Amino acid sequence: MAKNYIVADVGGTHIRVACFPIQSQKPTIVKRIPTKGQDSPHLRLINLIGSMNSSVDEIAAITVAVPGPCDPYEGIIYKAPNIPSWVNLPLKKMIQEQFNVPVAIGNDANLAALGEWRYGAGIGHHYLIYITVSTGIGAGVIINDQLLLGVRGLAAELGHITVLPDGPLCSCGKQGHLEAVTSGPAIAHWVEQKLGQGASSSLTMDKPLTAKDVSAAACQGDKLAREALARAGTYLGIAIMDFLHIFNPSLVIIGGGVSRSGESLFEPMRTAMSDHALSKKYLEDVVITTCALGDEVGLMGGLALAQSLDTLSPCQ
Amino acid sequence: MAKNYIVADVGGTHIRVACFPIQSQKPTIVKRIPTKGQDSPHLRLINLIGSMNSSVDEIAAITVAVPGPCDPYEGIIYKAPNIPSWVNLPLKKMIQEQFNVPVAIGNDANLAALGEWRYGAGIGHHYLIYITVSTGIGAGVIINDQLLLGVRGLAAELGHITVLPDGPLCSCGKQGHLEAVTSGPAIAHWVEQKLGQGASSSLTMDKPLTAKDVSAAACQGDKLAREALARAGTYLGIAIMDFLHIFNPSLVIIGGGVSRSGESLFEPMRTAMSDHALSKKYLEDVVITTCALGDEVGLMGGLALAQSLDTLSPCQ
Repeated sequence: MAKNYIVADVGGTHIRVACFPIQSQKPTIVKRIPTKGQDSPHLRLINLIGSMNSSVDEIAAITVAVPGPCDPYEGIIYKAPNIPSWVNLPLKKMIQEQFNVPVAIGNDANLAALGEWRYGAGIGHHYLIYITVSTGIGAGVIINDQLLLGVRGLAAELGHITVLPDGPLCSCGKQGHLEAVTSGPAIAHWVEQKLGQGASSSLTMDKPLTAKDVSAAACQGDKLAREALARAGTYLGIAIMDFLHIFNPSLVIIGGGVSRSGESLFEPMRTAMSDHALSKKYLEDVVITTCALGDEVGLMGGLALAQSLDTLSPCQ
Repeated sequence: MAKNYIVADVGGTHIRVACFPIQSQKPTIVKRIPTKGQDSPHLRLINLIGSMNSSVDEIAAITVAVPGPCDPYEGIIYKAPNIPSWVNLPLKKMIQEQFNVPVAIGNDANLAALGEWRYGAGIGHHYLIYITVSTGIGAGVIINDQLLLGVRGLAAELGHITVLPDGPLCSCGKQGHLEAVTSGPAIAHWVEQKLGQGASSSLTMDKPLTAKDVSAAACQGDKLAREALARAGTYLGIAIMDFLHIFNPSLVIIGGGVSRSGESLFEPMRTAMSDHALSKKYLEDVVITTCALGDEVGLMGGLALAQSLDTLSPCQ
């Protein structure tokens, strides 16, 4: 019988589940449903996995990328900001009881790092940092070919390092974290504040701004929009330089919507990196790049996790 | 014939070399000489190792803790701030050619982390951070029972993360690094600046101040001295919270002279950690402690490195 991995990628909006034959990187089936519906999201997920089950011969393992911090050892989701009912949810156990096969879960940004390392921009690198700058900032780190997890699986929260001790409030409620300065909403909020103070710009407060609006205005040469992206890029650069001092990786992969702002963001980022580098050596050996796997990164990370289960603990 | 490890700890002032029987944690011989003399420091080191050689039956391996960034894979010292002639010095090769046994070198703070993990405060922990706050700030990180090295061995430079983007100049020439705010000289310099601005204190500018003077004055209730340590402690706390978000360790070991300032430093440090924590979970599972091995930490780290050589690559 042909063996398959079932890989799920759960977002705040959609759940996707794919079936990969164990020797393949191409899914034979991919199904997608909205995360929210009549049943609770974890029942919807389990039902969707079940609907795959009936179409494949045998399941070798099931993995799930979850949108929030989790304990990958115990398989418990601590909290998923976009799925309010998922607090301390023992998802691994729930799925295992249903299907009786090896199950593993991982934070989506952590698994994205694993996916890029195994199948994407990070192939061949032993030390890499993946950082996605979007509504929030997610990250994952590969050290010596292993995903950095920490004692409770809470490591690699690179978006929550403090870059401006007295800076703006972060989504987590604390002050001055990178996410509070460089995420999409943070960039839009900074522009709105400046407009409120009477700054002149092609941007207006007629409707709530997004980082995409700011990025588009910057492309058109809007000075305030450029300043906003330069500020975000500068703090991103300071933070990335911190990560280079901390991890000395050979690759930094930057993803997420904000990273599509281009040179308005990246040029000040590179300047800040150079301005804060302890030594040129940190910059000589590192490549800064964008992600290669696009929307597939969650599924490919889940596939890499499933394969590592097979290799590392076949009896799990 | 009895086999021995020869372990050297090179500082800016002294070179110490110890001989450990391979099954023992107690050296049978320890010799110490000044680092500087008629010969160049690496010749003095090699001669001292040679003088051990004649007194022991057989050398299983030689390790050296070096006072600066180095490439532990190639065994090259990039730069030793206190030994100006050590720039791109291929120390491993030099020692290997002389004694024809396995040789490994490591940054002293990295090896201190390894020593504390194997023999000191970190026994039983799988993820720990060691940070020593003194004239500079050195650090080492254990992840999943392995020393964090990075692609060129330059990782774990925790003292050079930026905590105050527009802050004071660091010893490395860049602005606002943790070392520029929390090291001993940085604390003393801040007090001197305040005295220069007319701040009242029991401390005076009659002679150059040290962090030890500031610490003593703080113990006596001096307000300016307490403020200086509170400032240093606050930024140390912000940085340590960054490291908890990044590594999610179960242990943080703080060493170095500045850490002897006690609660004047640690109370504001803990407050800052709590103020910047993404979630209480990061603080629930972590113990903050002081180092256990004192002045022996370099030699014990070198011993742990020698033992890992034996285990990991017996044919090296």
